[in-house]
Amino acid sequence: MDIGIGALVDELPSDLVITDPDITASYARDQSRFTSWSVPAVVLAPRSTAEASLCLTAAHRHSVPVVIRGAGSGLSGGANGASGAVMVSTHRLKTIVDIDAEARLATVQAGVVTADLRAAAGAVGLHYPPDPGSVEMCTIGGNIATNAGGMCCVKYGVTRDYVAALTVVLADGTIMRTGHTTRKGVVGYDTTGLIVGSEGSLCMVAEATVRLVPAPAPPTTVLATFDALVAAGRAIVGVHRSGTPFSMVEILDGTTVRAVEHHTGMDLAGVNALLLIQYEGNMPQSAQDELAAILSASGATDVVTSSDPQESDMLLQTRRMALPALEGLGDWLLDDVCVPVPRIVELIAAIEHIADRRGLTIGVFGHAGDGNLHPTIIFDASDAEAAGAAHAAFVDITDAALALGGTASGEHGVGRLKRPWLIRELDPADLALQRRLRAAFDPEGMLSPAG
Amino acid sequence: MDIGIGALVDELPSDLVITDPDITASYARDQSRFTSWSVPAVVLAPRSTAEASLCLTAAHRHSVPVVIRGAGSGLSGGANGASGAVMVSTHRLKTIVDIDAEARLATVQAGVVTADLRAAAGAVGLHYPPDPGSVEMCTIGGNIATNAGGMCCVKYGVTRDYVAALTVVLADGTIMRTGHTTRKGVVGYDTTGLIVGSEGSLCMVAEATVRLVPAPAPPTTVLATFDALVAAGRAIVGVHRSGTPFSMVEILDGTTVRAVEHHTGMDLAGVNALLLIQYEGNMPQSAQDELAAILSASGATDVVTSSDPQESDMLLQTRRMALPALEGLGDWLLDDVCVPVPRIVELIAAIEHIADRRGLTIGVFGHAGDGNLHPTIIFDASDAEAAGAAHAAFVDITDAALALGGTASGEHGVGRLKRPWLIRELDPADLALQRRLRAAFDPEGMLSPAG
Ligand SMILES: Cc1cc2nc3c(=O)[nH]c(=O)nc-3n(C[C@H](O)[C@H](O)[C@H](O)COP(=O)(O)OP(=O)(O)OC[C@H]3O[C@@H](n4cnc5c(N)ncnc54)[C@H](O)[C@@H]3O)c2cc1C
Ligand SMILES: Cc1cc2nc3c(=O)[nH]c(=O)nc-3n(C[C@H](O)[C@H](O)[C@H](O)COP(=O)(O)OP(=O)(O)OC[C@H]3O[C@@H](n4cnc5c(N)ncnc54)[C@H](O)[C@@H]3O)c2cc1C
Repeated sequence: MDIGIGALVDELPSDLVITDPDITASYARDQSRFTSWSVPAVVLAPRSTAEASLCLTAAHRHSVPVVIRGAGSGLSGGANGASGAVMVSTHRLKTIVDIDAEARLATVQAGVVTADLRAAAGAVGLHYPPDPGSVEMCTIGGNIATNAGGMCCVKYGVTRDYVAALTVVLADGTIMRTGHTTRKGVVGYDTTGLIVGSEGSLCMVAEATVRLVPAPAPPTTVLATFDALVAAGRAIVGVHRSGTPFSMVEILDGTTVRAVEHHTGMDLAGVNALLLIQYEGNMPQSAQDELAAILSASGATDVVTSSDPQESDMLLQTRRMALPALEGLGDWLLDDVCVPVPRIVELIAAIEHIADRRGLTIGVFGHAGDGNLHPTIIFDASDAEAAGAAHAAFVDITDAALALGGTASGEHGVGRLKRPWLIRELDPADLALQRRLRAAFDPEGMLSPAG
Repeated sequence: MDIGIGALVDELPSDLVITDPDITASYARDQSRFTSWSVPAVVLAPRSTAEASLCLTAAHRHSVPVVIRGAGSGLSGGANGASGAVMVSTHRLKTIVDIDAEARLATVQAGVVTADLRAAAGAVGLHYPPDPGSVEMCTIGGNIATNAGGMCCVKYGVTRDYVAALTVVLADGTIMRTGHTTRKGVVGYDTTGLIVGSEGSLCMVAEATVRLVPAPAPPTTVLATFDALVAAGRAIVGVHRSGTPFSMVEILDGTTVRAVEHHTGMDLAGVNALLLIQYEGNMPQSAQDELAAILSASGATDVVTSSDPQESDMLLQTRRMALPALEGLGDWLLDDVCVPVPRIVELIAAIEHIADRRGLTIGVFGHAGDGNLHPTIIFDASDAEAAGAAHAAFVDITDAALALGGTASGEHGVGRLKRPWLIRELDPADLALQRRLRAAFDPEGMLSPAG
């Protein structure tokens, strides 16, 4: 063990320190691929903001870099262990501190699992919208650090839209409170919003106060199938143009549909693309008619509509099975790109072209209503050539999104995986400024070391 | 003229420079009271981002501080001239560069008047939500710099929620592009959001790309009157609790109602508080029934409902006349505080108590649905004692809002008027960080000098 780390461990209460290599090994990496990682020598596990401050103060004093980890469900390597760094994990910061139903605010420690917050809000008739696919596993702190999205975004926006106030610990151990719990407030800069999406590189989020919304009415679900992807693309653009406030607009392409068919035994013969659309409550007749017209003009082959909760849930089964089904085909590398909605057809076409050219299976699914797709490259990780082709396709797809006026990451973050795109996507002046902002938070660069 | 300013003027193309004292005098101050100001020796008026960069580069080279000004409709002194500083005005940056109806984005220069952007969006069937009362006069750059609100916020949120991307000029003249035009994007820190609300202290906004939404359906308007303010307060809390997505929830207190009655000749006898509520499109029957029950349980004396556009507009006339009517009573000092919605009754009671104690007339109106009120203190500015009492009441009100868990400014900004509250409201660690963030943008502190 590194001298600095040894000194740090000696200084901290022993019940905050995990050094058992069987345990620390399980903190080595998140769910990403093609990212570097190493097993942390030490995992620190504070139970309170004060203990988190103790941990960061000690690390700072001994010049030991720190990686912060939530549930490790990330897909970009942001929580991967770095050599010479300690890991501070939020897995003991699991208290739901307060649910204020009148003010529609919840205060939780950073390690609270997103599904647990959603359940607690539901118990008082309220709703916490952000719903990443990993909702049963990921933490609020991780969601805040990545500005996580999900299927709700087309109506409700992203995690940043729900973060009212934060208690964070700076790299030197200082405890800092930001934000306000009123609905509006313009005193000072929006440090809260700046911290959201900063992926553990500015500070550690210890506690958050998030906004809740009234519980939504049970949705009407529409499943539309298409015999060609381009027809589904037309439907997405039509749905976007309609302006109806749908609460979900998800797509599965033919490759994904085949995988789901194979994985679940559902009969999806002839389906080469599938859209799942939800509207909360009863869809007004005019919106129903308009949607029907859009789907038929786009060439939908079948349209099933239900407002029965159980049936709705069954219709969503295809979407829920998308990633597990693709996983069944081999190793997978999940991309996460976002383009302006009107350009989504071009993006899908570009991905098909890349799959052809690289001789790879690429399943495409994702949050079509936001232009945010997750092209999933299937390959054999034990075959170096296949891995090389997969990574090359990943680069191609990300570049294609940028070329369409899009971004290299819609919701999964930069982490280690997308670092090369920072310089491609951001204006050099913005990138230089962002480095100065980081230094304003963490002058010695202790957090989220390059790895 | 100061030597630095003289050198700066010599260096810039003469058609960018205004030195005529009759003209520069009209740039001395915004619409605030009790703020210091001075007539700028020079107003610079760039027509393009490149020219704005020229102006800031020259000012930086000669170490001349810069105040940035939009329309000067601000209510906190942020655009007031400062001695020894030049003013850079956006009044020639008036081009609507692009309206992309498919992607629902508008790109405009900073000096575009908000109403003009709204009209341009309306012309293609779209809508730009932010609607400060000053909409016919204020600029998009000013709205971004103050994170302006308005009556729409209860449904649509604030200006920050609509800013996708910015072209800004840094204090040293560097042109910087931030943000993304996709619906989601997590590459890099949210510098765009940080600049929103920074009141000209981080950089000059030269051009902005903002999000548009589908044009809303014509609203149903409900006007409810009450014989006691506390009854209206109960109604606000009930409306908030209902969770119905109203697009407007505005209040006028008895003092304001009396002023409107006097100013317009409307018959509002016995009305001691008035709520205006809007719902876009046809309110579902269940929401109508719930609202009727809330209003009657709260003790509303009269409820008028209309979905006829002209009648709706007439009902709003009381709200539109609030400030002009109060202005008719004497000089006015407008406060802007925001508390959690459940505490709005306590805030109103505190304001009444302050008016009594200070022997002042204070009209209260504002965005009740957000807990954001504009207590308006009426006084005689030519009487030093009265002015002192008015300022003391202003301090009392702002402190009362803080004591209720609120903020010193919901939407008008800190400017010069609310500077003392920065230190009272913000956590010291946050304030210290914010100073470092400012230095990351503007190391020499050239922008928005203390005055
Ligand atoms: C099956 C699956 C589906 C997914 N679906 C979605 C989806 O729909 N939408 C979406 O956005 N993402 C999705 N993800 C990605 C991932 O779940 C999210 O990024 C999530 O927000 C990560 O949370 P976490 O607690 O696991 O964080 P981690 O993976 O532990 O960390 C993620 C990043 O946040 C930082 N971090 C974590 N906690 C803190 C803290 N308290 N303070 C400061 N920094 C911190 C880490 O340093 C790291 O940079 C999915 C992942 C999987 C495996
Ligand atoms: C009758 C009336 C009603 C009002 N109603 C509302 C309301 O409902 N909601 C609300 O939020 N406000 C309201 N206001 C306040 C004011 O109109 C807003 O703050 C508005 O956003 C200011 O815009 P402006 O163009 O006039 O900016 P200015 O007053 O010129 O400047 C305001 C601040 O922004 C900075 N600034 C201006 N342009 C730029 C730029 N391009 N780049 C960087 N910084 C810049 C200035 O330095 C200053 O700090 C009202 C004002 C009046 C007089």
